[in-house]
Amino acid sequence: MKPRDDQALARRIQFILEADKLKTVIRNTLLTDRSRFENSAEHSWHAALTAVVIFDAADVDGMDLAHIVRMLLVHDIVEIDAGDTFCYSLEQRQTQMRREKKAAERIFGLLPEPQADELRQLWREFEAQQTPESRFANAVDRLQPLLQAIHTRGKTWRQNGIRKDQVIERMLPIRTALPSLWGYVIDLIEDATDRGYLIDDDAQGKVNARLL
Amino acid sequence: MKPRDDQALARRIQFILEADKLKTVIRNTLLTDRSRFENSAEHSWHAALTAVVIFDAADVDGMDLAHIVRMLLVHDIVEIDAGDTFCYSLEQRQTQMRREKKAAERIFGLLPEPQADELRQLWREFEAQQTPESRFANAVDRLQPLLQAIHTRGKTWRQNGIRKDQVIERMLPIRTALPSLWGYVIDLIEDATDRGYLIDDDAQGKVNARLL
Repeated sequence: MKPRDDQALARRIQFILEADKLKTVIRNTLLTDRSRFENSAEHSWHAALTAVVIFDAADVDGMDLAHIVRMLLVHDIVEIDAGDTFCYSLEQRQTQMRREKKAAERIFGLLPEPQADELRQLWREFEAQQTPESRFANAVDRLQPLLQAIHTRGKTWRQNGIRKDQVIERMLPIRTALPSLWGYVIDLIEDATDRGYLIDDDAQGKVNARLL
Repeated sequence: MKPRDDQALARRIQFILEADKLKTVIRNTLLTDRSRFENSAEHSWHAALTAVVIFDAADVDGMDLAHIVRMLLVHDIVEIDAGDTFCYSLEQRQTQMRREKKAAERIFGLLPEPQADELRQLWREFEAQQTPESRFANAVDRLQPLLQAIHTRGKTWRQNGIRKDQVIERMLPIRTALPSLWGYVIDLIEDATDRGYLIDDDAQGKVNARLL
């Protein structure tokens, strides 16, 4: 068999080339030097790296880091077709699941079976949030942009009029999956609010993060 | 202990923020849509994803995919200080190791021990090329930009006057670590040469790739 006749390999190569497009999907997070917005490919790398670094500091009884990392490597690939969803846009989030399901069918379907289904299953696991590994991955996926938002003085938060309680709600997966980091995260959000990066609606008693 | 007093966690967070700078290190590889050059962070993601996809198609007797992926996630971080080295520039490559060693000390040193040393060791393993996993990672690190170079009609090759034998030499780690892909890779390079993306010096009998 000539190499070019290896259909399974050709399909894997096609998927690898298709994945390149994730580098052109732009997120609402600024780089720490504020030179530009982050794309979903470099975010996926940063989230996977964050998982490696945070794993040692977390309560990960029996969790499989390799599984978490694989999940983070593929979790945003659907955005090649579906686009990035701004987490604070209700309108975008309402159609998100339908768009992403369709994208998962097409993009992972470029791969030969059973790999296509294995990677699609990783994405489904991340979305379903029913396993410890998917919860850890999700928490890390929230932590990384939070750190960058704070480091860039909440520029995109201020531009979009984001409230402190919205950010706390967005970060709740960290409380569940990375409880040892929750105090740190709350401190960061409180500081960010004091500095005016976030709108403080705490005065109305809507949210008291420390009691959550 | 207050969360902010957790020095080990604070150091991990500092490393995660520092890693963000890899997104501003620009490589000589174009994205497939030719809109811009790739950066080392998104390349690291793409290489790690490529490892996951190719692992199933390769002869990987006893190899640890998770170890390969972790290595690929950290293998370029030294470029934050040392810059990307254009693989076909002899001048840049001569000072590369010294610059990168210094960078590894500083950047991984942001982390608490023993994690700092663990990640530094992953980078050293990749550089030393003495283990099956580091050879697999290196082969994938060569394959991903090759695919993009061919998909973008060898634009950066043509601009830099790159010869076919230089690319074959650069891809030799694939022959060792991913032998089942070597025929495919040679076919791609032959095609690219026929299309004029690479200078063909085969006529002088310097290199005969099929006999290598």
